[in-house]
Amino acid sequence: MFPSLSIVRSAVCLVAALSLTSTEVPSKASVAAQKSKALVTYKPNGEMLPPSNYREWIYLSSGLDMSYSANPTDMTRFDNVFVNPDAYRSFLRTGSWPDKTVMVLEEREGRSKGSINKQGHFQGTNVMGMEVHVKDASRFPGQWAFFDFASPTANGTLFPKSAACYSCHAAHGAVDTTFVQFYPTLLPIARSKGTLSPEYVKESAAKQ
Amino acid sequence: MFPSLSIVRSAVCLVAALSLTSTEVPSKASVAAQKSKALVTYKPNGEMLPPSNYREWIYLSSGLDMSYSANPTDMTRFDNVFVNPDAYRSFLRTGSWPDKTVMVLEEREGRSKGSINKQGHFQGTNVMGMEVHVKDASRFPGQWAFFDFASPTANGTLFPKSAACYSCHAAHGAVDTTFVQFYPTLLPIARSKGTLSPEYVKESAAKQ
Repeated sequence: MFPSLSIVRSAVCLVAALSLTSTEVPSKASVAAQKSKALVTYKPNGEMLPPSNYREWIYLSSGLDMSYSANPTDMTRFDNVFVNPDAYRSFLRTGSWPDKTVMVLEEREGRSKGSINKQGHFQGTNVMGMEVHVKDASRFPGQWAFFDFASPTANGTLFPKSAACYSCHAAHGAVDTTFVQFYPTLLPIARSKGTLSPEYVKESAAKQ
Repeated sequence: MFPSLSIVRSAVCLVAALSLTSTEVPSKASVAAQKSKALVTYKPNGEMLPPSNYREWIYLSSGLDMSYSANPTDMTRFDNVFVNPDAYRSFLRTGSWPDKTVMVLEEREGRSKGSINKQGHFQGTNVMGMEVHVKDASRFPGQWAFFDFASPTANGTLFPKSAACYSCHAAHGAVDTTFVQFYPTLLPIARSKGTLSPEYVKESAAKQ
């Protein structure tokens, strides 16, 4: 069900990650209590436990069958990206990501026929996989790291520094190695705060 | 830029709505303070002011070019659906929507070529329109009402009771006239709580 790590898939690791696991809807808890929980938790072997409530974080965007490869795929898959609320609020103020940012990329099946839908695609109940992009300067030498989850309940494994994720995000990410160019509510903020990366600005200018 | 109300579009009014306007990110405010704010505000003439911070509500799902009509459209459009957090938490507990639920359907441009993307679609910065589905028994005789926004800054106008929205949602909505069948994290909850509508259960059984 979950595709093995292809060039296409690893190149689509859009996201990034922090350090507080909140397992419950934060309705009754105070903001202070929420902050004391770890968003993500690591095992002694370095694996990351799957973030449990990322669907209640801030939604950034979705794509359908996005690929940075010219080769088409036969998958129909939505990518939904979420970020922890504290990092989002920090981005609104500054146009950049604070330490402990956690971004979750959920890969969900795309369906076409179902109920009364006759055209286009909607999202089904199958989660095909998940990736986390986390910023944690005390833990990762390059500040950011990518983790791959084969399912929503599997532990995440660290992508090695040689993975295409890192070089692709460094070369093309609009802000701090993240693909803010695909997050439509954040791109104007980065532009107004002057936090777009020189690489992205140059690449955008070349395409105009 | 914003398509006029076609059968396709009015039939795609997926969403539903409540009564509190929160104009700021609720980071510092207490839960109690947040609850005192109106999510949506009405003008004396019955128009609804555009909800200002729905992108910080709970994300339910996205579709691409969904249509309940067999006629294809030439639009590329993502529909993103958000619901206010209190209503979401109530749904997690009960499998149904409380009074004052507000759902926002954001229609956002779908783009294919941009930055390093070569396949599929991502979401652009243009919001093509918005609809709100609100549940407010004290305000609407049928409890639920749909509002149409021609842009994110325009006031919303009430769809008349004769609009296709109402009859379509009543006939096909999986839970309480809402299209929970397209909200993948909520459908299993409705199933387990036994809150699926008889119409939806019958329609699903007929398709199997």
